[in-house]
Amino acid sequence: MVDVRGLQEAIAQFARERDWEQFHSPKNLAMALTGEVGELVELFQWLSEDASREVARDPVAAGRARDEIADVLIYLVRLAAVLEVNLDEAVRSKLQTNARKYPVEKARGNSTKSTEF
Amino acid sequence: MVDVRGLQEAIAQFARERDWEQFHSPKNLAMALTGEVGELVELFQWLSEDASREVARDPVAAGRARDEIADVLIYLVRLAAVLEVNLDEAVRSKLQTNARKYPVEKARGNSTKSTEF
Amino acid sequence: MVDVRGLQEAIAQFARERDWEQFHSPKNLAMALTGEVGELVELFQWLSEDASREVARDPVAAGRARDEIADVLIYLVRLAAVLEVNLDEAVRSKLQTNARKYPVEKARGNSTKSTEF
Amino acid sequence: MVDVRGLQEAIAQFARERDWEQFHSPKNLAMALTGEVGELVELFQWLSEDASREVARDPVAAGRARDEIADVLIYLVRLAAVLEVNLDEAVRSKLQTNARKYPVEKARGNSTKSTEF
Repeated sequence: MVDVRGLQEAIAQFARERDWEQFHSPKNLAMALTGEVGELVELFQWLSEDASREVARDPVAAGRARDEIADVLIYLVRLAAVLEVNLDEAVRSKLQTNARKYPVEKARGNSTKSTEF
Repeated sequence: MVDVRGLQEAIAQFARERDWEQFHSPKNLAMALTGEVGELVELFQWLSEDASREVARDPVAAGRARDEIADVLIYLVRLAAVLEVNLDEAVRSKLQTNARKYPVEKARGNSTKSTEF
Repeated sequence: MVDVRGLQEAIAQFARERDWEQFHSPKNLAMALTGEVGELVELFQWLSEDASREVARDPVAAGRARDEIADVLIYLVRLAAVLEVNLDEAVRSKLQTNARKYPVEKARGNSTKSTEF
Repeated sequence: MVDVRGLQEAIAQFARERDWEQFHSPKNLAMALTGEVGELVELFQWLSEDASREVARDPVAAGRARDEIADVLIYLVRLAAVLEVNLDEAVRSKLQTNARKYPVEKARGNSTKSTEF
């Protein structure tokens, strides 16, 4: 479902060339991820939901969103690598869990958390 | 570098079956992403950096990290889909930008932001 | 404008009694703050803006929001304490900066960032 | 323990003068809070814990931390206001809950979550 080996290798090389492995502890990468998610969220904070759905139609706004999403993905893939997490297996397992937690008949049209069904 | 088409389709179907598309505005998905990142960060908040590097060796802690990373990735891939962002192109473009911003000779062993070189 | 000395002392004592000062580095507290903000954001992620404005009218939802806001405030006040930040001075200075960045005539009814005026 | 009435009134006036109440739904303010926390976290992401403890000694770094903490506090106080949350009562109640969840004898020197005692 997910193949990020190319990106993983590119980021690893980028870090190695700059002697940045020393900074890339899981703890630090989780923080860096937070910072990037904050920048992504900022793009949508004052938009209505409808306006946020229109972002894909606006080249400037869409370009910003694209860049921030890339930043988040880069740190997430790097974090998975240093934690030796196989992202394909991780999402397969999580989707199965989610399917059990949110059976179609209970979850349909319903945004309630499974713990409150 | 990144191929997430399988995951993207699986998530889209999951949302469709539950009539959840109505909730999946970019604005809402950015918030959901924040919540999941918060859960991921929590795993590392009281650990030293060294201890965070050992998480991969601890099956229980590694399993939690794996699940939280999967949650973040699932929402990120979903957000990219609703924003019509091609993740492969997005990360290629971003890695090029990063290479320009952080030339090896300036960035080596240095965690300073490029804006402060 | 802000007086949090009572809370600051209560938290310091709470940490001291539990020998938790060792965990309360600014780095760790910033992460703990992230986790709590994630829990707060989760409360609103699937709500429309209008529904989020009604949360104050719903005792259960309002109680949850109250608790999560308290968690965020507790870590923020603790972080300020370990960084020796005077919150009253900090917000006074920031409000002045904001008033300069967002003059009424330019900012009226406008949610654009000051850097894009 | 907490008196933020002065700040709350100053922010309300700031928003009123700019006709920004329309943007200040709890949902949007929770997102704005996320963005500011992201900026705060960024200051510490590549620092060791020890280095983060030294930030108070470095006027430039301390000034940045002070400004970001102020930004977080401003949005948090605003969010509490629109949700009609009394911050003093909220933290009193939360500290009592925390004292029950983390009895001194169990929590001493221990950063484990109460749910895992």
